[in-house]
Amino acid sequence: MIQSKSTQQLTREELKHVLSVARGDGEIDILIKNVKIMDLVNGEINESAIAIAGKTIAGTGLEYLDQKAKRVIDANGDVAVPGFIDGHLHIESSMMHPFEFERLTLPLGTTTAICDPHEITNVIGDKGFSWFLRCSELMKQNLFVQVSSCVPALPGFETNGGPFPLEKMKAYKNHPNVLGLAEMMNFPGVINAFDDVLDKVEEFQEMNLDGHCPLVRGKDLNAYIAAGIQNCHETITREEGKEKLSKGMALIIREGSVAKNLKTLAPLVTDFNSCQCLLCTDDRNPYEIFNEGHINYLVKKMINEIGIEPHVAYRLSSYSAAKHFGLKRLGLIAPGKQADIVLLSDYKNVEISDVLMKGLPVKEHKVEQSLSKNLEESKPPIENTMKRSPLGDKEIEFNFEQGTYNVIEIVKDEIITNHLKVNYDGEKFELDDIKKICVIERYGQNIKPALGLVKGAGLSTGAIASSVAHDSHNIIVIGEDESDMTVAANKLIEMGGGFCVVKDGKVIASLALPIAGLLSLESAEVLTEGIIELKKACKEVNVHLNEPFIQMAFLALPVIPSLKITDKGLVDVTKFEFIDLKD
Amino acid sequence: MIQSKSTQQLTREELKHVLSVARGDGEIDILIKNVKIMDLVNGEINESAIAIAGKTIAGTGLEYLDQKAKRVIDANGDVAVPGFIDGHLHIESSMMHPFEFERLTLPLGTTTAICDPHEITNVIGDKGFSWFLRCSELMKQNLFVQVSSCVPALPGFETNGGPFPLEKMKAYKNHPNVLGLAEMMNFPGVINAFDDVLDKVEEFQEMNLDGHCPLVRGKDLNAYIAAGIQNCHETITREEGKEKLSKGMALIIREGSVAKNLKTLAPLVTDFNSCQCLLCTDDRNPYEIFNEGHINYLVKKMINEIGIEPHVAYRLSSYSAAKHFGLKRLGLIAPGKQADIVLLSDYKNVEISDVLMKGLPVKEHKVEQSLSKNLEESKPPIENTMKRSPLGDKEIEFNFEQGTYNVIEIVKDEIITNHLKVNYDGEKFELDDIKKICVIERYGQNIKPALGLVKGAGLSTGAIASSVAHDSHNIIVIGEDESDMTVAANKLIEMGGGFCVVKDGKVIASLALPIAGLLSLESAEVLTEGIIELKKACKEVNVHLNEPFIQMAFLALPVIPSLKITDKGLVDVTKFEFIDLKD
Repeated sequence: MIQSKSTQQLTREELKHVLSVARGDGEIDILIKNVKIMDLVNGEINESAIAIAGKTIAGTGLEYLDQKAKRVIDANGDVAVPGFIDGHLHIESSMMHPFEFERLTLPLGTTTAICDPHEITNVIGDKGFSWFLRCSELMKQNLFVQVSSCVPALPGFETNGGPFPLEKMKAYKNHPNVLGLAEMMNFPGVINAFDDVLDKVEEFQEMNLDGHCPLVRGKDLNAYIAAGIQNCHETITREEGKEKLSKGMALIIREGSVAKNLKTLAPLVTDFNSCQCLLCTDDRNPYEIFNEGHINYLVKKMINEIGIEPHVAYRLSSYSAAKHFGLKRLGLIAPGKQADIVLLSDYKNVEISDVLMKGLPVKEHKVEQSLSKNLEESKPPIENTMKRSPLGDKEIEFNFEQGTYNVIEIVKDEIITNHLKVNYDGEKFELDDIKKICVIERYGQNIKPALGLVKGAGLSTGAIASSVAHDSHNIIVIGEDESDMTVAANKLIEMGGGFCVVKDGKVIASLALPIAGLLSLESAEVLTEGIIELKKACKEVNVHLNEPFIQMAFLALPVIPSLKITDKGLVDVTKFEFIDLKD
Repeated sequence: MIQSKSTQQLTREELKHVLSVARGDGEIDILIKNVKIMDLVNGEINESAIAIAGKTIAGTGLEYLDQKAKRVIDANGDVAVPGFIDGHLHIESSMMHPFEFERLTLPLGTTTAICDPHEITNVIGDKGFSWFLRCSELMKQNLFVQVSSCVPALPGFETNGGPFPLEKMKAYKNHPNVLGLAEMMNFPGVINAFDDVLDKVEEFQEMNLDGHCPLVRGKDLNAYIAAGIQNCHETITREEGKEKLSKGMALIIREGSVAKNLKTLAPLVTDFNSCQCLLCTDDRNPYEIFNEGHINYLVKKMINEIGIEPHVAYRLSSYSAAKHFGLKRLGLIAPGKQADIVLLSDYKNVEISDVLMKGLPVKEHKVEQSLSKNLEESKPPIENTMKRSPLGDKEIEFNFEQGTYNVIEIVKDEIITNHLKVNYDGEKFELDDIKKICVIERYGQNIKPALGLVKGAGLSTGAIASSVAHDSHNIIVIGEDESDMTVAANKLIEMGGGFCVVKDGKVIASLALPIAGLLSLESAEVLTEGIIELKKACKEVNVHLNEPFIQMAFLALPVIPSLKITDKGLVDVTKFEFIDLKD
């Protein structure tokens, strides 16, 4: 079934053209000369030439220098590697719509991305999912869209905007851009063999089964893998990574905007196990993509900061992912592979001179010029999704009594949290930096705001709010006092979704995300500017997190340990139970 | 489609049992303790325990020592590796029927074999192919049967017994034991984009596409690979192997009875490229399986004679093959994998203490006891296939004149041959050791024997004959004089097929292969005895080849260079043309 996917088949005519060029009697469409190919099988770099026929590499080798070619590209001694493959991401976390994502990341060498649009699917159900598929059909970049498996992430524990049950999921299996089941976050459901969960796994078992099992070890991990789950990008410790690898899971090494596992996990990678390791960004915001980079940045970091050999780093960025997902025509600069090629003037520092996508230099695909047209043709879901009336003055109300409180502690650069028990003596908490947090349902159920406490945000005054709150994307607010928190929540409702910072009762910075409360229609440049403004505003209210909004967004995710808050209350993620704020 | 194959699926009930045992609350069926698992992902050996549920490994880890188990196997410190996978073979070359093959090779650790029954299919068409599939359904060993792609090997160049065109091939795609298209030997057809050849490739492109392209390099190789052919076991030189690897082909390292490539190719294997290298026997006779071994022997040779690290050698014997063919539940000792396990008391010397197949020690499968019953149930094709009347005295007749003759030169331990031009001065040839060879059609077409000359056989007197002559399996005879050759051919016709040695007009040794002229119904022990007798007889007539009958059998194969002989005449395999005996 994977073999029938969009990057795998050539028509008979296309194949005959490729064979004719390959064997030497056809005219090459584009010949790349003065190029060194990084051989990701044997780990070497060899002088060669690349003969492209249509969108396919017909052949490699210096023999092609004598063959007739319509067009010649002189690579000036550059090293060629296969286009980068992002093995798992949520494009919504970039705040960009898919065409803007493509515009920004294609020139950075990302020619393939395997996404799970569960964010937008949580907000508007399969209207969101099908929109992503329509986008993937219009994009030049290979966008694969896994079928979101856990919408909502933890049924019964949060309110979301749209159902996406198995009956709806099935409909997408045969789409040329669908490779399988998206991250199965309900690892307890798999381990404990719940039939409705196994129904999903079984339905997609002829395709890829993506996983998500942070800190799951030993017998539990065995059960999860035994069900057929084939990879995991949620690995916190090195020992955990080694165990997953040894048990047959592909280790997807993630470097997102908050969750950064590269430094911990990359040292695990050896020549021997590299075929089972790949890279992903998962959740990476536009600021970091714009300023640091995408998968190219991960490769650069691996080589320069962590000391991974280039042939290993580049293997992880393409070859291993293609092999893992069964993408036979991707992941190598070799005959028959799709001509997705990155030309590097300096391969140790990942200095990109050009990127070819499906056989053409990226610029010639004119992605920027066709962006508006594509966006319109994709029929984006633009209706308002903030279905909540503005909050009244007293809707968010905290009352503390003497006793012990369950507090969510933010862990720097991680999306796991710690569960603290903190004493309140009647006047103050025994630990400092404890702020109020609440999650407000916004799908029309009018549920009372869920109240919680959080340590580690900083925030000496005011409030910050977001409609991005994984995965159900209700409104999440952290604040020093309830009135500022109310102003912040209401600003989001007014904008149709987004982020804002409030100080002394006034909104001092905001960024609208009107598509589903998750995405902007603006360019990456405008988004980046907006994020800079928000970060400045955060500093004004003394938030001392690097990525305040993203880190806050994960405080609502009840499938990552240890203590989280949803619109329905506090969730102990080690036991999968609601608990009270006061112990 | 690969995911629906017989080793891949568990029923819901089976899966639930596996998950229950894995997570800890179910009773283990068999617990293997005091065992060290060779981790073929990370390349280490770790003390562990293996918990088996039904036919599946539920989990690994010392944590299972405390769990209730119906039965415990004490591995006494043995090292456990996954059952060996033979990546490509023709069981017919072992002269055994599949159940005998299983009986002999299972205890040697071969738990999976991927065969191409093109030998028997060439003789009796899909009657032979379907019989192999029926056998595979009854066997305990995982026998996968690839759909023979080139029957006959080179249409128009040889007469065979049964058509096996695409229309018939298609019918088998969905069989649970079929993984794809068998070795596409017609590499010119692929390279030159013949539609009938591409029709076959396209039909099976959602599955595996096995290859065969000896000495094919550069642009031709590019074209062959671009068509989607994913592996090759016919690699002669080390540079050829490295080129195939770098271009994305899996290198199947073959060590057969005649064609022995291990010594040349194994040194190519590194930690880095090992995931793309696997092992096969291709054509291995019962004598060598019985006395040396099967895949276990290849592993032992790699470690001890060639100096390959054990973790690399064992990876090639299972992990890489499973990954390459998409066999998700094979190739690793890990949760969810089928419990095909080899226990080694000495892993450096491949000393096997026990083999588990689908979760049970091999002895308990009682393969020997059920052999006759299985054979009968499979409905083997036992009718006579030697459809030729005994030859008259003058049917084989050589007449030499002064001039140059095209002579086939046997290359020791290879199945390639050299094409010599040898002068005949009117009385003798300018080179010594030039004998007569002929191929006699035996499918009822009554074609005149095709005559040739061969150097390198030895044979000072008498004749040797075989009905095993790749791939069309007509009668092939090498001899000093025509009358002995006639006696030899007629003996084969009388036996219904097999081998024989003739000296001074008398048959001095013979072995019957009555099933299709290829297989015996006897045990491996009886076959081995028979082969020993034949080898002795060969020495009596001074044949100085190690494997006379197998080497002779390949002299008829017109898809391996350089000069071969079929029932229709001499074939120049570099140009794919008939040529005359006399230049």
